[in-house]
Amino acid sequence: MVKYYLDNAATTKVFDEIVKDLTYVYNEKFYNPSSVYKEAVEIKKEIELARTNLLACLGDKSGNLIFTGSATEANNMVVLSNKNLKGKRFLFGAGEHPSVKNSALELKNLGYNVQFIPLESSGRVNEIEFAKMLGKDVAFVSIQHVSNETGAFNNISKLVKLAKRANDKLLFHSDGVQAFMKLSYNIQNLGVDYYTISAHKIGGPKGVGALYIKNGVKIPTLIFGGGQEYGYRSGTENVFGMLAFSKAASICYRDLEKNRQIIAQHRNDLLSELKNLGIEYSVNGDSEGMHILSICLSEKVRGETLLYVLSSRGVLVSTGSACSAGKHMNTTLEAMGVSRNKILSSIRISFSAYMDFDAKVVCKIIKEELIKLEDKSYE
Amino acid sequence: MVKYYLDNAATTKVFDEIVKDLTYVYNEKFYNPSSVYKEAVEIKKEIELARTNLLACLGDKSGNLIFTGSATEANNMVVLSNKNLKGKRFLFGAGEHPSVKNSALELKNLGYNVQFIPLESSGRVNEIEFAKMLGKDVAFVSIQHVSNETGAFNNISKLVKLAKRANDKLLFHSDGVQAFMKLSYNIQNLGVDYYTISAHKIGGPKGVGALYIKNGVKIPTLIFGGGQEYGYRSGTENVFGMLAFSKAASICYRDLEKNRQIIAQHRNDLLSELKNLGIEYSVNGDSEGMHILSICLSEKVRGETLLYVLSSRGVLVSTGSACSAGKHMNTTLEAMGVSRNKILSSIRISFSAYMDFDAKVVCKIIKEELIKLEDKSYE
Repeated sequence: MVKYYLDNAATTKVFDEIVKDLTYVYNEKFYNPSSVYKEAVEIKKEIELARTNLLACLGDKSGNLIFTGSATEANNMVVLSNKNLKGKRFLFGAGEHPSVKNSALELKNLGYNVQFIPLESSGRVNEIEFAKMLGKDVAFVSIQHVSNETGAFNNISKLVKLAKRANDKLLFHSDGVQAFMKLSYNIQNLGVDYYTISAHKIGGPKGVGALYIKNGVKIPTLIFGGGQEYGYRSGTENVFGMLAFSKAASICYRDLEKNRQIIAQHRNDLLSELKNLGIEYSVNGDSEGMHILSICLSEKVRGETLLYVLSSRGVLVSTGSACSAGKHMNTTLEAMGVSRNKILSSIRISFSAYMDFDAKVVCKIIKEELIKLEDKSYE
Repeated sequence: MVKYYLDNAATTKVFDEIVKDLTYVYNEKFYNPSSVYKEAVEIKKEIELARTNLLACLGDKSGNLIFTGSATEANNMVVLSNKNLKGKRFLFGAGEHPSVKNSALELKNLGYNVQFIPLESSGRVNEIEFAKMLGKDVAFVSIQHVSNETGAFNNISKLVKLAKRANDKLLFHSDGVQAFMKLSYNIQNLGVDYYTISAHKIGGPKGVGALYIKNGVKIPTLIFGGGQEYGYRSGTENVFGMLAFSKAASICYRDLEKNRQIIAQHRNDLLSELKNLGIEYSVNGDSEGMHILSICLSEKVRGETLLYVLSSRGVLVSTGSACSAGKHMNTTLEAMGVSRNKILSSIRISFSAYMDFDAKVVCKIIKEELIKLEDKSYE
């Protein structure tokens, strides 16, 4: 029944090539990678190849990469790892994903000095305000690379330079979940100390994320046990998840430039067709070319209502991050100064280069449903 | 090449039925369970059915169950959740899995009063010593149900009663990873507040574990974010992992009594055949009927050497927990008072009712290799 899945920022469909591998991996590579016989040691080697491949996709083979159970776990791992820095200041973007924001609020609850960096109406952090907030006493900064709500992207390399100029010992983390394999960059040029990525946002399976750690940067152990993942994150390795993550990254890496063009085209087609149909939309923030689009199609129609009727027509979108679904107002849009009514009327459309999309069909459905809903709103 | 996989305590092969489901789950149920449209809500419901099924398999539908990325994570979650109890005493079995033991040592490093309960030569915790250690000031106890090293099982219901008599507010955790679906019990009769289980030890996939929490018992949040798993453990749900865990438990639950008989038979066949062949073995601890057998086959041959030669003949065993592999002496056997030489000469054989086993063939291979190695040890 689903014809157009436009919620790829929430999660993506696993690549067919990976699903095809599954039976083989589960039947032939089921051994515990920490066992010492040959069959197990070979799996351990494959995990190390997966790790190296992901580092290569990030652009830094000299870095370290710790596999986690999710990007949320990786974000928690970093944000909550700084408990030896009491008295210092911790800065977070005001539009961070709940896994960063709620970890930051937990730090605050524990008595740490946590501050949030304001957003511009573009959805980016306000660089001027950020510069003012910096100082010798700022020990840790976390700013997402691409917003999960709006697709707005921050100039991380510039922000890192600003931050390290104020305090060269400062540690900089970026949540790269919505940027990895969507933007073309080299992580060494970004200059971050930590960077979070996720498998299920790039055609890999759920249940595996990773934390990049720049060479020479330390992090305390999050999960104690058998010493897997260099002792940082113990627990029997999720072999299939790790190998599949690496494979998904390889596919996306190969297709990156092509995919960027496809996605930019999908966006343009959608917006042109909405215009053709006379729909007076407004886009929240500036996410030019990105796979995520936060958009208000009619201030008279609630985003949530629109989402439900569209889903009944086989078009799946969201009102915002699945991790915030139904919980409260969209705080990212609020921080950008979007009006309450516009927030409640907005939906998030997120594309994948690997999923079917037909702007004419989708916009026709949108138009038909909007007319029905607007009519109702006058009744 | 592997003919006899006898390392099922390290990990198990995923059931064919589950592998067959995979393609369907990955193709049709890839939506983010936190999304609000019908397709996602249905997945959320399936996760809740999986949770209820696991609770039913444990024997307590009134309890709570939090899915985690591994049993190690669940063990950490519990042990490190007690940071509000500084000044109180924390008791741990001396033979706990590294995920409990190393979390306990972390608590100790942080200045908590952590004590280890001695083991008997049987591999069980010494109940008399335990009773002596108890007191009003003991706030937390963690004792594994079945030892991952020896298969020895503790009388958890008796230990819980002893502990709660000393302090009725005390919280009792048991690591049930090697007991779940191996022993027949009802968790309500055990009386524990927390209980850890793992998917990949019972024919499910790696990357998913769970923590049972008795109704009314609280635990702080481990991972902050989008509020999944009732807010205790945020992060996009590992849908396949959770559904597969539940399915594996259903299969094992259905087969439990039959499997216990098969495993007891495998053990008996192995020990009888060793005897027939004149191998003077000694079993470490008392694991009567269990799937794990810690055994010394010859004090003249290192367990590690034997493991390697057996693996070259297609028989996979271990020298102990994969999570401790190659790191140090087996501390569980040490705590049981096994001599250093016997520890170094011991191997761990662990059965599955679902894997091929032929005592005659395996023992013949063992005998042949032992003779060669013993000859070498005289050279």
